[in-house]
Amino acid sequence: FVLVWEELRGANENDTGNSATQRKWREQFLSRLRQVGLLQEAKKRIRFILLSAPWRVLCYYAEEINLKVPLEVKPSHAAVLPLVDLSLPNPLSQNVPNPPLEYYTCQFKSNKLERFLGSGDKETFFKTTQRHQVLYEILARTPYGSVNRGEVGIDRLISEEVFTAAYPLMPDDPVPLKSLVLRQILHGYWSKWSCWRRYQPLGHIREYFGEKIALYFAWIGFYTAWLLPASLIGTLVFLLEHILPLLFWLYAFAGLLFDNWGTVFLSLFMSLWAVTFLEYWRRTSSTLSHRWGCSDFEDIEERPRPEFSAMAPMTTRNPITGAEEPYFPENKRFHRTVTGCMVIIVMVTLLIFSAGTIASISASVLNLIIILTLSRIYTWLAGVLTRWEMHRTQTKYEDMFILKVFIFQFVNFYSTPVYIAFFKGRFVGYPGMYNTLFGLRNEECGAGGCLIDLAQELLVIMVGKQMINNVHEFISPKVQAWWQKNKIRPPQMAGEGTQTMMNVSPWEADYDLLVCEGLFGEYLEMVLQFGFITIFVAACPLAPLFALMNNWVEIRLDAQKYVREYRRPVVERAQDIGIWFHILQFISHIAVISNACLIAFTSSFVPRLYYRYTRDSTLSGFVNFTLATAPLSHNTTCKYRGYRDDNGEYLPEYFHLIAIRLSFVVVFEHVVFFIGRLIDLTVSNIPEEVEIKIKREHYVAKQALAENKTGC
Amino acid sequence: FVLVWEELRGANENDTGNSATQRKWREQFLSRLRQVGLLQEAKKRIRFILLSAPWRVLCYYAEEINLKVPLEVKPSHAAVLPLVDLSLPNPLSQNVPNPPLEYYTCQFKSNKLERFLGSGDKETFFKTTQRHQVLYEILARTPYGSVNRGEVGIDRLISEEVFTAAYPLMPDDPVPLKSLVLRQILHGYWSKWSCWRRYQPLGHIREYFGEKIALYFAWIGFYTAWLLPASLIGTLVFLLEHILPLLFWLYAFAGLLFDNWGTVFLSLFMSLWAVTFLEYWRRTSSTLSHRWGCSDFEDIEERPRPEFSAMAPMTTRNPITGAEEPYFPENKRFHRTVTGCMVIIVMVTLLIFSAGTIASISASVLNLIIILTLSRIYTWLAGVLTRWEMHRTQTKYEDMFILKVFIFQFVNFYSTPVYIAFFKGRFVGYPGMYNTLFGLRNEECGAGGCLIDLAQELLVIMVGKQMINNVHEFISPKVQAWWQKNKIRPPQMAGEGTQTMMNVSPWEADYDLLVCEGLFGEYLEMVLQFGFITIFVAACPLAPLFALMNNWVEIRLDAQKYVREYRRPVVERAQDIGIWFHILQFISHIAVISNACLIAFTSSFVPRLYYRYTRDSTLSGFVNFTLATAPLSHNTTCKYRGYRDDNGEYLPEYFHLIAIRLSFVVVFEHVVFFIGRLIDLTVSNIPEEVEIKIKREHYVAKQALAENKTGC
Repeated sequence: FVLVWEELRGANENDTGNSATQRKWREQFLSRLRQVGLLQEAKKRIRFILLSAPWRVLCYYAEEINLKVPLEVKPSHAAVLPLVDLSLPNPLSQNVPNPPLEYYTCQFKSNKLERFLGSGDKETFFKTTQRHQVLYEILARTPYGSVNRGEVGIDRLISEEVFTAAYPLMPDDPVPLKSLVLRQILHGYWSKWSCWRRYQPLGHIREYFGEKIALYFAWIGFYTAWLLPASLIGTLVFLLEHILPLLFWLYAFAGLLFDNWGTVFLSLFMSLWAVTFLEYWRRTSSTLSHRWGCSDFEDIEERPRPEFSAMAPMTTRNPITGAEEPYFPENKRFHRTVTGCMVIIVMVTLLIFSAGTIASISASVLNLIIILTLSRIYTWLAGVLTRWEMHRTQTKYEDMFILKVFIFQFVNFYSTPVYIAFFKGRFVGYPGMYNTLFGLRNEECGAGGCLIDLAQELLVIMVGKQMINNVHEFISPKVQAWWQKNKIRPPQMAGEGTQTMMNVSPWEADYDLLVCEGLFGEYLEMVLQFGFITIFVAACPLAPLFALMNNWVEIRLDAQKYVREYRRPVVERAQDIGIWFHILQFISHIAVISNACLIAFTSSFVPRLYYRYTRDSTLSGFVNFTLATAPLSHNTTCKYRGYRDDNGEYLPEYFHLIAIRLSFVVVFEHVVFFIGRLIDLTVSNIPEEVEIKIKREHYVAKQALAENKTGC
Repeated sequence: FVLVWEELRGANENDTGNSATQRKWREQFLSRLRQVGLLQEAKKRIRFILLSAPWRVLCYYAEEINLKVPLEVKPSHAAVLPLVDLSLPNPLSQNVPNPPLEYYTCQFKSNKLERFLGSGDKETFFKTTQRHQVLYEILARTPYGSVNRGEVGIDRLISEEVFTAAYPLMPDDPVPLKSLVLRQILHGYWSKWSCWRRYQPLGHIREYFGEKIALYFAWIGFYTAWLLPASLIGTLVFLLEHILPLLFWLYAFAGLLFDNWGTVFLSLFMSLWAVTFLEYWRRTSSTLSHRWGCSDFEDIEERPRPEFSAMAPMTTRNPITGAEEPYFPENKRFHRTVTGCMVIIVMVTLLIFSAGTIASISASVLNLIIILTLSRIYTWLAGVLTRWEMHRTQTKYEDMFILKVFIFQFVNFYSTPVYIAFFKGRFVGYPGMYNTLFGLRNEECGAGGCLIDLAQELLVIMVGKQMINNVHEFISPKVQAWWQKNKIRPPQMAGEGTQTMMNVSPWEADYDLLVCEGLFGEYLEMVLQFGFITIFVAACPLAPLFALMNNWVEIRLDAQKYVREYRRPVVERAQDIGIWFHILQFISHIAVISNACLIAFTSSFVPRLYYRYTRDSTLSGFVNFTLATAPLSHNTTCKYRGYRDDNGEYLPEYFHLIAIRLSFVVVFEHVVFFIGRLIDLTVSNIPEEVEIKIKREHYVAKQALAENKTGC
């Protein structure tokens, strides 16, 4: 672990009261750390302090934070694919060296040390990630000032700018030999473009980055794999319904055969796909979290956020530990949260009402630019609001922030498509009696119907967003890194003369890298994409294909970012992908409703079907059927889309169609939700195999740790 | 604990090979028990063996089965009701003596004995229920023959009739002084009729019967309390809509005011009521299971069922413990399960098709008798099927059995009402062109509309069933007890001469009582009732009231049964009400759909509304509007219910109505499910207060049990 602070160059240490306090805090913090027993090495002008924990300290804290240590090697779970049975080589797998072994683990108890596997070798018994966890725990709980005022821990010190950085060392120095290999493995077998068709080495990723990041990559990999069938069927439907009819001689035939049944099938398929995807992800997630030994991980006493401690107006007794700690009154927070909700509601309402206008006045590309700009503003606003609400713990803060941003972005990205799909051209009125809103005549869809408009809009928003994002992700770290390097180096050059790049110590090289920004942006992007491909799939069958291509690139881009551009993040444990799963579930529900309505109301599926069965089975005259004659006040015969008679009154057919459309919605929703429910019930959340392993693990742990085998 | 077997009177012990094996097994079992360290006292001709565990054995096994023992007294959760704030006396509470204290508990570790509360007094440290658990555990795992063939445990011995009974002693003997009081408390403060308006003393029930039974009583109490508002509103709606119009002078007024809006409101209310009820029950359940220290209870290695061990054709290695044990091939079980499902499907299909016939040919009372008879047959059949499927563990067996019986009973009880609600009178055709099914003309509803028919049918089935059940529950234990007493006593009288009732030992008195039958029947009855009051509430607003009255009686009847008529059951731990919760959730979903359809299609709500807004706001001429003139081939003008023109073709109004009805269904369902979802999200499963307590408990346990406070 490295702590960094920059001393003001040539500054008199007493000139500002602020820096004096900072120095006092810094010194107190470091001396306490020495008391705990950590070894420190200080380096250089920009002060780097290398911290490492000796064996005794490691043992003590490992027990304190319930680290899991191996008891017994698990029988390896050979991924038994059907391919193996056919003795075909699996083209997706690659032999990554040094696969991490799997163990039955249990909580570390220092008095049972000899029962654990590998307890002989003190250098390798705890993995580097575990050492980092222990060190971070110590850093986070060491006080540097008044405990009551929450002056505790490195996070707060960094937010107060006493230290400028604290990060685990990248294993570039040859001491922990195995880790060096690990990073190179990730480099060579994961983040390179040539690995595009391989499985991700999740075990290695988890060893290096910890469970939280590994779960993100597991999720995106899983999602990408599931996109394959979806994009295949999507493309097929697109070809059959939109390309085949263009080939002239097949027109009649294709029209007869498909008649939009393909779209209906696709909608049904994607709705069920989304539900099944989530179920199976839950299954995979629980398998992974068990394999990684964090399935019963639970943060019993989460520390308050540093910003919270700094700004909390009073202290109170923590009901769990009984210690004094900063406190923010519950009812005040409630008021603030309510105010925050009001702001969101106002913003969202504004957005919804402007959606029509935005969609009308601008081309899709311009629309995209507006959306992206707004999305920046909203994210910033959500951050401000959430900070203002003063949530005590980081988890709570993140959840509220994610929720706010998601609501914003959901409305921001989807309101234009929704407007086009369900409102545009519906309240137009008819010639001679157009409806107006704020004096403007309501807009109509293009000649091809609203679905074509929608598809166009979607393609621009979704693909455009993805491309901009990818370019951004590709370029921005490089620019930032360059900028940061420049910011640090020049004064150093000036201060210490000719320092070549050759003798830059590893901790300095690491300091030049970027701070890891967290997974929020990555998840948000994927979740919005998931929304596009499920909610509007009826309009744009190619969406899954574009998503698939994007994710293929995205995985490697993210991998490169994490392996090369970022400082090594502190390992975080996680059991699942958290609130994102609930958001995905919400989207999949919306998708079912949206698909039902799209087919029933926006596509010409129902009118066609109706016409075929009541009028003419070859659909000749169908277009005429959908048109109405304008009222007689106009002199020339003029037709418009609608089911009205010559006076503008609705025809009986209009009501027949409404009834059929509604029945379709009811039937579609009930079928999909019922099947989804069935899938939910039949697919158990934890695979049976894993369940047995968990029980076996408990059994082994009980045997190993039993206190008395002969009675008391 | 008492073990009982009856020796054949005057039988030569070697005359049958069967009894010899039994005796051998019995002796081996008892000698092993002696090895484990249990104390035995044998009594009398009908052999009673009293078992008790000494302190050393208790300690060892308490650790083995993770018993929770108290660490610290919890600050008592004063039920802060609004009443208390107003310093009003709460009429529902009663002062039950000896309220059990609440503790922060943690798993028992014998080497940390001194850190637990009350560890000084060896007589009272373990509660009687915990002693029973330990004893039962020993009895269940002691082998009496070949372990490989699963010849292990008391359950198997009882099913092989080696012993006739094994039960914990009722605390009527004055030794464990506190328990004596406990049973009397339950007698005086719970099972008496005079307690009808009091809270149930759940803490005492749990102390005496264990968590599983206490959770049942907690659930039924909670359910009954929630029935209060439902029945209040139901009765109000009933009065306003059905009684008020009967008073002549209010007719026009009431019609104007309500117009079935009350029913719509009631349906909406009950749908949301059901969802909210389940959410809050989950909350209460988690609170209780935490308070009783079984929230993280999980049965790691459940033993195979005795019947399973006896009949399993082969043995295999248990993947968890690695020991040999009886095994039934997975694929064979799968085949059997599939066959079982087929049988159920066939039965259910038969039932559904006969529903119409049953409803047609018979009066409601006869109908009820048929339903009750069928329900007996089905339960028996489900038992046979489930046994045949050879499930390994008791939990799995029970779940499958419950599921089977529930499906049967669901169809059995609800198919007739559903037929009346949605099918009767719908496919009748019209005069001159009646539709027929199997040559019979389809039946029409009575003059009052199908809703009246439905209400009548429901009242008879629901109330009739409840009354029959209650009488049955009241009388049958008494009859059975009398019969069992007679069966045992007379030969004894003959064998041992004049034995007066005075010197009957407590274990003999207990032996005369009935074996506890489990909670299956009780739960099933309540769940079916829950279905009646939620699914068909639109037809019968009084249903919640009847349910409420029934449950008030039911609670005390069950209480008496458990306190007086049954042998004390072995304590079972449970975390929640298990599969029943999912069944209730399923019912509440069905209820939403059913209510939407009942109002839209069966009641006259939509036609009235339509008529009011399109024709005449005073509803004059409404009845005429709903009638159609029979085709002209009939000579006299003859009207029938329907929206058709004189030739039997549907009028445009018919389609308007269909469209409105379907919109109503769509809107109703989406609103209810959306609100339900919101409730689900906002009501956290565990109250915040309890969450803090859980964390505090973990913290206290960690502090108490920490191995090293100074490093290793």
